[in-house]
Amino acid sequence: MKGKIKQIQQYLSSRSIDAAFLTSTENVCYTTGFRSNPHERWLAVFVPQTGESTLICPGMEEEEARHAGWEYRIIGYSDTENPIQLLHTLLQTKNMAVSSLAIESSHLTVDRLNLLKESFGSFDIHSIDQQMNDLRVVKSQDELVLLRKAAELADFAIETACSELAEGKTELEILAAIEFELKRKGITEMSFSTMVLTGKNAASPHGNPGLNKIKRGDLVLFDLGVVYQGYCSDITRTVAFGELSKEQIKIYETVLAAELKALEMVKPGVKASDLDLAARKVIQDAGYGDFFPHRLGHGLGLNVHEYPSITSDSDFILKEGMTFTIEPGIYVPNIAGVRIEDDVLVTENGYETLTKFPKTLQYY
Amino acid sequence: MKGKIKQIQQYLSSRSIDAAFLTSTENVCYTTGFRSNPHERWLAVFVPQTGESTLICPGMEEEEARHAGWEYRIIGYSDTENPIQLLHTLLQTKNMAVSSLAIESSHLTVDRLNLLKESFGSFDIHSIDQQMNDLRVVKSQDELVLLRKAAELADFAIETACSELAEGKTELEILAAIEFELKRKGITEMSFSTMVLTGKNAASPHGNPGLNKIKRGDLVLFDLGVVYQGYCSDITRTVAFGELSKEQIKIYETVLAAELKALEMVKPGVKASDLDLAARKVIQDAGYGDFFPHRLGHGLGLNVHEYPSITSDSDFILKEGMTFTIEPGIYVPNIAGVRIEDDVLVTENGYETLTKFPKTLQYY
Repeated sequence: MKGKIKQIQQYLSSRSIDAAFLTSTENVCYTTGFRSNPHERWLAVFVPQTGESTLICPGMEEEEARHAGWEYRIIGYSDTENPIQLLHTLLQTKNMAVSSLAIESSHLTVDRLNLLKESFGSFDIHSIDQQMNDLRVVKSQDELVLLRKAAELADFAIETACSELAEGKTELEILAAIEFELKRKGITEMSFSTMVLTGKNAASPHGNPGLNKIKRGDLVLFDLGVVYQGYCSDITRTVAFGELSKEQIKIYETVLAAELKALEMVKPGVKASDLDLAARKVIQDAGYGDFFPHRLGHGLGLNVHEYPSITSDSDFILKEGMTFTIEPGIYVPNIAGVRIEDDVLVTENGYETLTKFPKTLQYY
Repeated sequence: MKGKIKQIQQYLSSRSIDAAFLTSTENVCYTTGFRSNPHERWLAVFVPQTGESTLICPGMEEEEARHAGWEYRIIGYSDTENPIQLLHTLLQTKNMAVSSLAIESSHLTVDRLNLLKESFGSFDIHSIDQQMNDLRVVKSQDELVLLRKAAELADFAIETACSELAEGKTELEILAAIEFELKRKGITEMSFSTMVLTGKNAASPHGNPGLNKIKRGDLVLFDLGVVYQGYCSDITRTVAFGELSKEQIKIYETVLAAELKALEMVKPGVKASDLDLAARKVIQDAGYGDFFPHRLGHGLGLNVHEYPSITSDSDFILKEGMTFTIEPGIYVPNIAGVRIEDDVLVTENGYETLTKFPKTLQYY
């Protein structure tokens, strides 16, 4: 926590910016250790170029923030107080003026920027978004413990899903069973809406889980993730229910070959775009180039989709300690929809997959 | 849909604003009928003071938007296109300049406002937030059909919750069962994180569902809501598991009296603040004034918390056709946490509760 605040202060110093004002749940959690959903209330961290940082949170959450490990100042406000005005008053007592401020410009709303201006007067506005992305891209050992646990729970969810497969069951019934079992393990928050898609529904780019029933000869696609103490996992597996056609199998094997191709290239120094292009080439060479319409993957951490995006035109270079997904897919309408996705950690000389559920075609 | 666009255009005309640019999922749904979660992509409706409106959405969602009933122009963009630039180009071909624009200032981010400025050059910025609140506060018959259905499903969820109560079961197990049964009915989206809180946990303002076990003599609090075709419900019931103490019963009866007191005052023309004050007085008179720390309720519709806020200092006057919650509560640490919440429709001469689960103290 201290190290993270210090890194932000070094950045502010290098750019001669007076202070940073972080407002997204994820960046507040990253810098303070305190994770909270403020809904319509203010949650923010004010980091001056030098001196003590201040967490702004609802008064009734102060204790929790302390408990989470935040050692610096807290402005805990009531619903009748204006927390920005409280911050301004505090800074005045410290004789600190804010003539330049780095905000999360992709998160702060126009209204909130105006409220800041009302209290602080005019100031130069900088965006700290890319800097926060750069800081967060390489994970600490503490973060990796949580990411591993989140991935382990995702594996468990896929196991549960597979054990629930039965002829005539609906996608929603299986989805319900997955989340039921996760809640029994204390997990109430998913990284995103769980997907259980079968047959034609998995082959459609618009697929959403519904009352479609599992039937023999279908491929069933599961895409899900859990949030564990703020950190996200994201796994996709596609399995066979009964015997498949030759084309279904060919599509599955092509996606798997693409995923493995990209995976085995992973190590520090490799261009993210090369992974995407290599996986894409495997799919193109098999004749399915038109049926892989999305990027290869994305960064993973406090957000389920975070920096960097793993695309064919990304200029990002892989770094040791970063975590991201690899998730090629082929979707041929009325034939098959297959995606295979792992959470991947870049290690000193290569990679480790955090998600471990088998990828050879599983039959149920 | 046409009527709503027309109302926005009348507003723009009355204020001499060139156009409105709506960006929240809820306001886009309200004006177009099309509900979509764009994640990091753009979803917006551009409404000029006169002439045809334009929906901006990812290209692969165009068909769905048509299906939802949107009859006007659509800009369906690909991931490599800049939708704002596409809109700007379109307006240029129509010889339309934008010198003033009404935005959702509580939703639009600083980055996105900058992107609008990059394409459109400088323009006067107005906020359309309050106008959209005013439009949305009174529900149409079509909206009421969905709100009633959402409330009916909330009642079903409470019934499920109560039928699951058993000594030694954890809060999370009951929560899991509630959402499992809802999924079997096709409901995958809750209005907010479901709350199942028992005993001391219900009496704490920080309560979150966990591994606390149901035991005899506990009050159990359920607070939940479902999203049905975009519309939200929000219900709270507190029930007895086994015999209660006199004080627990007194607290329950006080909350119920406060809720009924506010309810029976509901009709068009009444001040929202009077409802809050009347319920608060019942609780104060019973000696629990310090233990009702929140507002009486909030508007309900496409958002689970929307305009107006039902507080002691609200100057809002109730209108026929509006829907909101009434939810007094008393939380005495280590003794009892009780809240009772209904979804209420203001009718011509009074009110109707959309949530129907019994409120006399239920014993299990």
